[in-house]
Amino acid sequence: MSENNNPTAALIIIGNEILSGRTRDANLSFLGQRCEELGIDLIEARVIQDIESAIIEVVNAYRKQVDYVFTTGGIGPTHDDITSVSVARAFDVAVERNAEAVDAMDRYYPPGKLNEARLKMADIPVGATLIENPVSGAPGFQMENVFVLPGVPSIMQAMFNGITNRLVGGLPMLTESVKTDITEGTLAQGLGEIQASYADVSIGSYPFFKAGLLGVNLILRSTDNERLQEATEKVREMIREMDGKIF
Amino acid sequence: MSENNNPTAALIIIGNEILSGRTRDANLSFLGQRCEELGIDLIEARVIQDIESAIIEVVNAYRKQVDYVFTTGGIGPTHDDITSVSVARAFDVAVERNAEAVDAMDRYYPPGKLNEARLKMADIPVGATLIENPVSGAPGFQMENVFVLPGVPSIMQAMFNGITNRLVGGLPMLTESVKTDITEGTLAQGLGEIQASYADVSIGSYPFFKAGLLGVNLILRSTDNERLQEATEKVREMIREMDGKIF
Repeated sequence: MSENNNPTAALIIIGNEILSGRTRDANLSFLGQRCEELGIDLIEARVIQDIESAIIEVVNAYRKQVDYVFTTGGIGPTHDDITSVSVARAFDVAVERNAEAVDAMDRYYPPGKLNEARLKMADIPVGATLIENPVSGAPGFQMENVFVLPGVPSIMQAMFNGITNRLVGGLPMLTESVKTDITEGTLAQGLGEIQASYADVSIGSYPFFKAGLLGVNLILRSTDNERLQEATEKVREMIREMDGKIF
Repeated sequence: MSENNNPTAALIIIGNEILSGRTRDANLSFLGQRCEELGIDLIEARVIQDIESAIIEVVNAYRKQVDYVFTTGGIGPTHDDITSVSVARAFDVAVERNAEAVDAMDRYYPPGKLNEARLKMADIPVGATLIENPVSGAPGFQMENVFVLPGVPSIMQAMFNGITNRLVGGLPMLTESVKTDITEGTLAQGLGEIQASYADVSIGSYPFFKAGLLGVNLILRSTDNERLQEATEKVREMIREMDGKIF
């Protein structure tokens, strides 16, 4: 549980291509937003290499630490897709060819196309519950509190939307944002004072520096809407008193 | 050291705004690419909340595990900027107002603008070496093998470019990519065979699914250019034999 008593989650992003900088991850951003809507606190994300020992270690660390663990990447048919086997090892179970997964893929692929490499995607840890893939057939799976999803964002998102009924959330996190041209150093003192009066509202200050324009995005977050609105109005008042613009 | 004997690195991305999905991180992608050019293996990245205990724990875990640790975010003037103090605690030293940092900021800010909140950015762990900020004055710092950088990408990048002379790299990682409309399941067996013959070339297979087009990006990486070219040609040959397109 986190400070606000909401369930917690962590994300494991599996893939050398993200660490090499070649592919920019899009799954953290999606899952972060969905968790917030569901009242689940995503407290950490880790990007790791396609290495079995790394996957096992992080899966086992996170699944004891948080309520829900999501993994993305590494469940395809090629030699570098080792997530399913690694998660099975983390739980100390075998993988087996899952009949339900074979059926799902059989319905998706044209006759004769479900070759041995593709069937590898039906090798699922013993005891897992499948996660349906409405886009490209091969399912993900859930082992206890660990949800194993693919790396391709559009497919991952479609599959995630099918499992939200398995997740028990808390109070949705509510958000307000105030964007201004007053810089952080000028706002800092007053902002600190507002934060001190509103311990149940988390106030984040994120400077931006784009096309010569310097300013700040202030993000206020709380599960209590009344307090959130009050704190946000205090922030706006402070900026107006400084003759700042609010965009 | 990693498999290829190159120095290793890890990145700590500090900020609730990344975990909430509101801001999409851009620093991992930049640092991943720069590390590759420098012959440094970025083996892991972790996105954590603005919480002192979390920062201390990860800094202390990584600095023993890898050759270089980079942190981004949380070194501004506001109440939620706690990276410098947390890194000092990880090293069990105090922060002190750093005269050199005050000078640098004094040169940057117009007279009268260097207020107490901004001066907080000159509070640096005892024993640290500064990292110059050519964009907005307030410096980052290096404590042993930990490099503390800001979160705003344009400023982080300018500062990183100033410290590459402090990093000792190995052999630059060389890369080839082959993009095709042949899908993973069809390529998998042949690709696995090529990988088995080229243990010194890492072959990654990354499916894409965009606008109805399904295909794969194959990324080959090695520090040995001759072997890399050979393996890449084998992959191209295989795709041509399957009558696949190479984009």
